[in-house]
Amino acid sequence: MTTKPRVFIPFLLVLSILLVSATLALSTTEDPERQIERCKQECRESRQGEQQERQCVRQCEEQEEKRQQGEETGKEGRKGEDPEKRLEECRRECREQAEGREQRECEKRCEEECKEHRGENKEEEKREEEKGEKRRGSDPFFFDEESFLHQVRTEHGHVRVLRNFLERSKLLLGVANYRVAILEANPNTFVLPSHWDAEALLFVARGNGLITRQCQDNKETQELRRGHIIRVRAGTIVSFVNKDRNEKLVIVMLFQTVATPGMLEAFVGAGGRNPESFYRSFSKPVLRAAFNTGVDKLERLFGRQKKGAMIEASQEQIRELSRRAGSEGLPRPFGESRRPFNLLDKRPSHSNRHGELREADGDDYPELRDLNIQVSHASINKGSMMSPNYNTEATTISIVVGGNGQVQIVRPRVSGQQEEGRGREEEEGRGREEEEGRGQQEGKEEEEQRQRGQRYQRVESEVSRGTTYIVPAGHPSVAVSSRNERLEVLCFEINAMNNRRTWLAGSNNILKQMDRMTKELAFDQPAREVDEVLNAPREEVFMAGPQERERESEGGEGRDGPLESILEFAGF
Amino acid sequence: MTTKPRVFIPFLLVLSILLVSATLALSTTEDPERQIERCKQECRESRQGEQQERQCVRQCEEQEEKRQQGEETGKEGRKGEDPEKRLEECRRECREQAEGREQRECEKRCEEECKEHRGENKEEEKREEEKGEKRRGSDPFFFDEESFLHQVRTEHGHVRVLRNFLERSKLLLGVANYRVAILEANPNTFVLPSHWDAEALLFVARGNGLITRQCQDNKETQELRRGHIIRVRAGTIVSFVNKDRNEKLVIVMLFQTVATPGMLEAFVGAGGRNPESFYRSFSKPVLRAAFNTGVDKLERLFGRQKKGAMIEASQEQIRELSRRAGSEGLPRPFGESRRPFNLLDKRPSHSNRHGELREADGDDYPELRDLNIQVSHASINKGSMMSPNYNTEATTISIVVGGNGQVQIVRPRVSGQQEEGRGREEEEGRGREEEEGRGQQEGKEEEEQRQRGQRYQRVESEVSRGTTYIVPAGHPSVAVSSRNERLEVLCFEINAMNNRRTWLAGSNNILKQMDRMTKELAFDQPAREVDEVLNAPREEVFMAGPQERERESEGGEGRDGPLESILEFAGF
Amino acid sequence: MTTKPRVFIPFLLVLSILLVSATLALSTTEDPERQIERCKQECRESRQGEQQERQCVRQCEEQEEKRQQGEETGKEGRKGEDPEKRLEECRRECREQAEGREQRECEKRCEEECKEHRGENKEEEKREEEKGEKRRGSDPFFFDEESFLHQVRTEHGHVRVLRNFLERSKLLLGVANYRVAILEANPNTFVLPSHWDAEALLFVARGNGLITRQCQDNKETQELRRGHIIRVRAGTIVSFVNKDRNEKLVIVMLFQTVATPGMLEAFVGAGGRNPESFYRSFSKPVLRAAFNTGVDKLERLFGRQKKGAMIEASQEQIRELSRRAGSEGLPRPFGESRRPFNLLDKRPSHSNRHGELREADGDDYPELRDLNIQVSHASINKGSMMSPNYNTEATTISIVVGGNGQVQIVRPRVSGQQEEGRGREEEEGRGREEEEGRGQQEGKEEEEQRQRGQRYQRVESEVSRGTTYIVPAGHPSVAVSSRNERLEVLCFEINAMNNRRTWLAGSNNILKQMDRMTKELAFDQPAREVDEVLNAPREEVFMAGPQERERESEGGEGRDGPLESILEFAGF
Repeated sequence: MTTKPRVFIPFLLVLSILLVSATLALSTTEDPERQIERCKQECRESRQGEQQERQCVRQCEEQEEKRQQGEETGKEGRKGEDPEKRLEECRRECREQAEGREQRECEKRCEEECKEHRGENKEEEKREEEKGEKRRGSDPFFFDEESFLHQVRTEHGHVRVLRNFLERSKLLLGVANYRVAILEANPNTFVLPSHWDAEALLFVARGNGLITRQCQDNKETQELRRGHIIRVRAGTIVSFVNKDRNEKLVIVMLFQTVATPGMLEAFVGAGGRNPESFYRSFSKPVLRAAFNTGVDKLERLFGRQKKGAMIEASQEQIRELSRRAGSEGLPRPFGESRRPFNLLDKRPSHSNRHGELREADGDDYPELRDLNIQVSHASINKGSMMSPNYNTEATTISIVVGGNGQVQIVRPRVSGQQEEGRGREEEEGRGREEEEGRGQQEGKEEEEQRQRGQRYQRVESEVSRGTTYIVPAGHPSVAVSSRNERLEVLCFEINAMNNRRTWLAGSNNILKQMDRMTKELAFDQPAREVDEVLNAPREEVFMAGPQERERESEGGEGRDGPLESILEFAGF
Repeated sequence: MTTKPRVFIPFLLVLSILLVSATLALSTTEDPERQIERCKQECRESRQGEQQERQCVRQCEEQEEKRQQGEETGKEGRKGEDPEKRLEECRRECREQAEGREQRECEKRCEEECKEHRGENKEEEKREEEKGEKRRGSDPFFFDEESFLHQVRTEHGHVRVLRNFLERSKLLLGVANYRVAILEANPNTFVLPSHWDAEALLFVARGNGLITRQCQDNKETQELRRGHIIRVRAGTIVSFVNKDRNEKLVIVMLFQTVATPGMLEAFVGAGGRNPESFYRSFSKPVLRAAFNTGVDKLERLFGRQKKGAMIEASQEQIRELSRRAGSEGLPRPFGESRRPFNLLDKRPSHSNRHGELREADGDDYPELRDLNIQVSHASINKGSMMSPNYNTEATTISIVVGGNGQVQIVRPRVSGQQEEGRGREEEEGRGREEEEGRGQQEGKEEEEQRQRGQRYQRVESEVSRGTTYIVPAGHPSVAVSSRNERLEVLCFEINAMNNRRTWLAGSNNILKQMDRMTKELAFDQPAREVDEVLNAPREEVFMAGPQERERESEGGEGRDGPLESILEFAGF
Repeated sequence: MTTKPRVFIPFLLVLSILLVSATLALSTTEDPERQIERCKQECRESRQGEQQERQCVRQCEEQEEKRQQGEETGKEGRKGEDPEKRLEECRRECREQAEGREQRECEKRCEEECKEHRGENKEEEKREEEKGEKRRGSDPFFFDEESFLHQVRTEHGHVRVLRNFLERSKLLLGVANYRVAILEANPNTFVLPSHWDAEALLFVARGNGLITRQCQDNKETQELRRGHIIRVRAGTIVSFVNKDRNEKLVIVMLFQTVATPGMLEAFVGAGGRNPESFYRSFSKPVLRAAFNTGVDKLERLFGRQKKGAMIEASQEQIRELSRRAGSEGLPRPFGESRRPFNLLDKRPSHSNRHGELREADGDDYPELRDLNIQVSHASINKGSMMSPNYNTEATTISIVVGGNGQVQIVRPRVSGQQEEGRGREEEEGRGREEEEGRGQQEGKEEEEQRQRGQRYQRVESEVSRGTTYIVPAGHPSVAVSSRNERLEVLCFEINAMNNRRTWLAGSNNILKQMDRMTKELAFDQPAREVDEVLNAPREEVFMAGPQERERESEGGEGRDGPLESILEFAGF
């Protein structure tokens, strides 16, 4: 008897999200006061030196201040601070703590971190971004770092979990069962074992490490390198090591919840007071019976660990942990997919001077078939863009893993009564554009557009490392790299089976394939004229971005033809 | 490794429908003022002659009036008007526009349309129907034409989409991921290409046409005839042609949403201002870069089309579009199901002098297996009925595609506190029955029934072309044709796998198969007496309807035995 | 073309549960007044003797009283009453109604019932339980008998259905499509045929009976014995016989709804006035036509049955019903799974002097694979416990089918703002612990615990026959038998595919398998010390419970080591 898909199994269930969403949040968050209190507590418990403790507590307090300022200014509780000052301080700490090569590496990390958190932004860019963030708050598809909550936060790294999608918008129902998280571990760090109540798919965005997966009958350790994709089944106990001496280990994690849709929790067994072991929650008599031992011994076992979920490991300890890599474990239960698959080692499916697209599916890593997910990685060169496109069946969850740029998504237009917050969105949108100096003309045009009852609207956002965005199936979108850095986007395509990406521009533009008569009828003009435009692009998938193109074509066809056509076309 | 159904994939998610439902609506609707404004706008933009424009605008205004009258009177914005007058006007327009054979065909269409919208109803029947409609408003399972919203509306045809089911009732959760739409295109009409963010299953209810499906790697055109079933995958770009010179093309469409549950949107790429191309929503700089060309050329490409989503095509143009039919395209990606399947050409699974039932499943058209849907078509002759029955696993979405009649569904009884609006429903139900002249007796009986705490109740409605109704799995229902027209019902059976229809009357009544002792215990009487009733019907599946039977049996067994038994049985 | 799991099929939909849940309830409940009225009505209609009718009505009134007392005191409307008095009365009725052997059996049943409803509880235990119940009201995972509603209630037995899970908590979304019911039929009883709008999986907890399943093309009767698992497909007409002369037939039923998620309804066709046949809800003219007969004959058919859904059957009738067992029916449609599977006849997967665990999956009974469910039965001896464990992928619905004990579940801690009712829960929790005499110390410790922002919390409850509890995937839990009775738990594991149980204590404790370095880092102490504790238990899966262990170890290691460690460890 073969297994059959049954509709009543999926018969799924969710709801009441408005009320749920409040609850959902909490699987990873707490109220701010408690969070800060815990933060300080963690500092005290995990201290290895007085100076470090002070530094740690100061960070907690900075975060508190930031919150009191209305949560408006910051990423990571550091943004409100002058970046130069912060960098200087970080470097000074390095000098105090380390020497020689270690010191230089430490300072390098400072700069890196600083870059990350400021994004190397100059004054005006920063203002841009703040506007961008405000905007993101009112559209449903973009999530910046503020949308992440700390699940773990120690001096050796952190795990940040993106809020449940349904907290943002009911339009994200289609991905409501997914959660995104990012783990960052400092060099020489061990992440304590835990299990999740969710299927996980991991992508190593940066660094070199080890992963150990353990279930009732099996255990194995694998090397992790940048580009690796690896699945962790629900309930599997997993621990990580950043074995690199210099570089951070950054892992992007996609969760598919199995217990309660949209709720995600990590359970730590082998811990103590911090991270708290869940064993401590069973009643004492039960524990005494379960371990057939006395409370004193149990307290010795589950009471010592106070350093937090991420701790420093010596090179010797890491060597011992590494020794097991790849050598242990029976083939089951991780089957043929024991080894991670390296997406970045794969030949690009599209590649030209503007960028590279790599895609992994079930043929590359069978677990992806099981999860019905495809993973792709787009690397868009400076000043270039990836062609507008849509996915036929897949809704995508994309995470920017490097660089910065801009993303536009086309969605059905909704009118004021129909979506809460849209008024605000539109107003801000208009306000923003005016601020950006495009002048009154466009604002007016947008007004007219709306009066004509147009069906589509654009949502857009500046994106940078950590920005997460959703593109629902069928919705056209485009990603553009900034002029100063390559944009790298990791994309999880949910419901990947039978999905195909459809290209809306470039030499493989789907419009080109229409027959002559359809073109004439659809565009209401001779096919020859249609083809003239459609056949102009010479490249596919990746191409010069707007700024790049303008520079290239400058002096060529002038500034885009007569003013009249600009005015007429302004409806764009 | 074989693909396995995973529960966490389906782990599906929905919710907050109350709030969602408002949003859901809008993917296809707008506020009335804007709708009328757009309607007029469309008239102006798509005019081919002054007289046609006036007529078009007038229709818009009629619709406006209708709305102001409280949306109570009309279908299609014409019902409030005297049908004879309307018919006359339509004919006059024909005479003005066409000559000879075309004129006669035009007039024929007028009559047809008129018949459709009046349903050939006499005064009293019309009152009946209005009552029916009011009632439908308060029960969860019936949807009349008022429940449809125009997604497209031009002088050459329209696409109407049934509101999201959850807007009506939480009892429709089981079909909340489905949407129903009806496309009507006039003769000689081309429907511009677009793609949906949903899987679609189409049934051609009337006419002769062409369908072109296009995806990134493939394109093909197929002939469409009445009875054809064809699937369009999510994201596939699809266009239609009504190539008939006389008859409308009517296509019933069932959508299974893939992006956001219950949300449906059509995306038009190859268009202009009307239908608006979604390309226009990308920012100008992005478009210039994507097409590697200037704004003037883009405006030429995406600015010319103003005729709307359905446009007239000359016979010559249609010939060219037809030439490709069936000849193009690689086998992939439409696989073995490239060709539509004609349900009406299939041998009926049940057939007798009262009607015919045709059923198509995955063996007939493999795409149905993939969608887990069965399609059936019941044709119930004048005055006949289809035996009461229920589906074991499938919830059915039925659309009346011809004729009129009555449908009854048995559902669990709910008490006042337990369902909003039930009081109203019951009151109206009672009121209605009184009005129908069944006298006070029944009203009283119903009251008693309720006091006895009975478990089931009947919801019923007059149905006519366009009526859509839902029958949840396990719920008994019956369909009765009117005396003057054959009732044709198209039925999508959702969750078809392992479903079987169970007949509750007729010679294949499932009760007959019970063994003697079960009959005696269940009915508390000798099996002989039970069999006497169960064995009476000689026909199965289709049989004489109530009125037919009464006429047949008149003078036979008199008026149903002694008065006492009528009174006692009145609990029915 | 093979069938593929499609995400958009499951795309499931639910929501607005808050509002839905009110509605959901009613598929099986009514408002109390009506319920009592119906109860009395049933008594009058089903009377076989005046004395029995009086007794029946008295029971109804008792229930009414109980409700007026605030629904606080009772199970089954009898708990408020002195059990001894009740037992005496029951025996007296036996003497009045029967003689000889039948009388003795009747008295035996009285004692049994009495035991059941009192749980043999002494005063203090009863108080415990009441506290437990209050607590259950505020945690999401435990359901006692008060959470069940009567769907059927006659003097010959009853069917009680557990309220929809979402009425309790949004945290139960993961099982929102499931319903639990318990059928109890007295000796010599026939349960009238009906069909459900849901897939059903049955487990025979007690007794000997027959099940007849009938669908359009097939019918068959099977013997049922304690331990049998049998599936009933949605829409299949099913009837039961308790053919035992002495023992009750008790069947635990798990439903997976197919029509509307979370809604469950039974449809009775072959009935009359009570149980009401759904046929009575069709209009009279339709019925006359459907049966091609007059109203008098229909009333004869559908009007006689007034005895209720469960009726007494003579030994002769039962013999005739039994004759068909196993002999009839074509292999289809119940396929290879025609015969029930006896879980209790299977060799235990784990067994020692403390208990036995039996597990059935798709290899034992193929229908389980189709439903993606595993069924297990744990029998925990007096004073023993089942090792703390969690399921990796499955969320379990457990029903206590015998004995009593205690269950603890560890869940993520939620803070006050984040879950309604939590404040209450915590307060009561604290209150309770103080009452239980653990002193102020623990209350203070719990307070501190909370201040430290700990992540997990314990929910726990006394459990006894009928208690149902949910353990979400990944959540650790433990079950402990009481000292005076063996605890028997039936467990449905939802989403069983790839699930594995992970043991958190005992000789197969998953922590033991960690390598040396992981242990040292995770527990922050030498691996030797960790192993000392982990290696102490000699048994796996089942082991001595807390009280048992304390008795065993008394005098051994004293009372758990020095006071200091108790104080320090008190955080548990």
